[in-house]
Amino acid sequence: MLRLAGGPVDLAAVNTALTPGVFSREKAEAQLPKLAARLDELQERLFAAARGGDSRRRVLLVLQGMDTSGKGGTVRHVVGQLDPNGIRVTAFKAPTEEERAHDFLWRIRNALPAAGEIGIFDRSHYEDVLIARVRKLALPMVIGKRYQLINRFEQSLVADGAVLVKCFLHISPQEQSKRLLARLDDPRKLWKYNPGDVDERALWPEYQEAYRIALEKCSAEDAPWYVIPADHKWYRNYAITRLLVEALERIDPVYPQGGFDVEVERKRLLAV
Amino acid sequence: MLRLAGGPVDLAAVNTALTPGVFSREKAEAQLPKLAARLDELQERLFAAARGGDSRRRVLLVLQGMDTSGKGGTVRHVVGQLDPNGIRVTAFKAPTEEERAHDFLWRIRNALPAAGEIGIFDRSHYEDVLIARVRKLALPMVIGKRYQLINRFEQSLVADGAVLVKCFLHISPQEQSKRLLARLDDPRKLWKYNPGDVDERALWPEYQEAYRIALEKCSAEDAPWYVIPADHKWYRNYAITRLLVEALERIDPVYPQGGFDVEVERKRLLAV
Repeated sequence: MLRLAGGPVDLAAVNTALTPGVFSREKAEAQLPKLAARLDELQERLFAAARGGDSRRRVLLVLQGMDTSGKGGTVRHVVGQLDPNGIRVTAFKAPTEEERAHDFLWRIRNALPAAGEIGIFDRSHYEDVLIARVRKLALPMVIGKRYQLINRFEQSLVADGAVLVKCFLHISPQEQSKRLLARLDDPRKLWKYNPGDVDERALWPEYQEAYRIALEKCSAEDAPWYVIPADHKWYRNYAITRLLVEALERIDPVYPQGGFDVEVERKRLLAV
Repeated sequence: MLRLAGGPVDLAAVNTALTPGVFSREKAEAQLPKLAARLDELQERLFAAARGGDSRRRVLLVLQGMDTSGKGGTVRHVVGQLDPNGIRVTAFKAPTEEERAHDFLWRIRNALPAAGEIGIFDRSHYEDVLIARVRKLALPMVIGKRYQLINRFEQSLVADGAVLVKCFLHISPQEQSKRLLARLDDPRKLWKYNPGDVDERALWPEYQEAYRIALEKCSAEDAPWYVIPADHKWYRNYAITRLLVEALERIDPVYPQGGFDVEVERKRLLAV
């Protein structure tokens, strides 16, 4: 995958069917049990450090991508490996009337993970510079300012102990066509199909351009974007699992020791 | 397990170490993969029926029990089998100042699952007739009225399409002692230990009495309480998994057909 920490990006030059760093699906999937166990241990330590200690560390996974790119699938398969006690998943839809009455970051702030939690955004504040740009939902000047507001917002999160893992699930238009057709072909998948998706699909180049600008303007060393080739679901799941493990390893949370005397507590406990 | 739909209950007469309806741990665990697959399919159908259709059906799992009874473990092991896209987990702590400024059901309403979701409450509105009663956090008259308010509230949820699965995780005081000591003995579990738990433990009979009253007053045919013998974690997980499957089977959600013409959509899609 491609790590962006500032500077130009050419999305069209990224082959969405590649599986960088991985020899084969078998080799990747053979690593999954070990990765899942590592993730499990690190997540518990993150949670424990906030509960029993006073750590403010937390993780925010941001998932963006065109329709069918696998945001929901990532939540199911990658986030599904985590302990639900410590996660907070939010799927952002078109903003409600109440949300529109606030600034665009209001609903985002309300959905942030607390200390010790792993937050997951299925779509995010980036919609306000993606669909908003393509569909002209705001004046260009307003959208222009949002990149800066997003950067400041993300910097404040990082300063407060969050590690951001921003993933652009990059698929080809051919892969999207295949996936939308599969939804139409299967009565058990019909509910996932939305006629409006075809209207958005017709604006593919405009969306790619909006993504390019957002990824260029809102990447930083401590808030990078990852471009995940996502035509292969197994690679997407493997790559994002690894990113989560790496994010938690950077935090390297430790079990707190508890602010009490263990021997005193043992005696108190045995007395009742 | 014991199903309560009204009438008296004698909690002391329930053996917390039993595993009713199950011959052995091996037999129960052999059923888990099949139960998990069934749960997975039913959860997707519930989610789909709300998304693609207009079903208002949803499930609310309420977990109550003494400290260490396994509420968090149930979330980890039972809820962990579900797709995180369709769950909403809330762990209720001592109410904040803002929450106390509202009626006791305010924070509960804010945490309810939306149509298609499975909501999970780790503690709940019942704390307001449990710890509130034992610790005299409200006047007896105020607490007396809450049972009725809870019943009315739960009836309104059921009328709006919710299925309630209320589980009392019933452990013995000996089992609690064992589990608290285990937390003190393991540096990686120390963070779970809270000296205040010993103070609550000293009030064991008062809590059992508060549970008895709550279970008697707030059980109904369509909002029953289940008393889950919970000394054995594997039995607790098995029993609650089964209850969730049964709740979803009662709803029996169906995949919606989509409000569009599949052939028209196929043509539109192939044209872009």
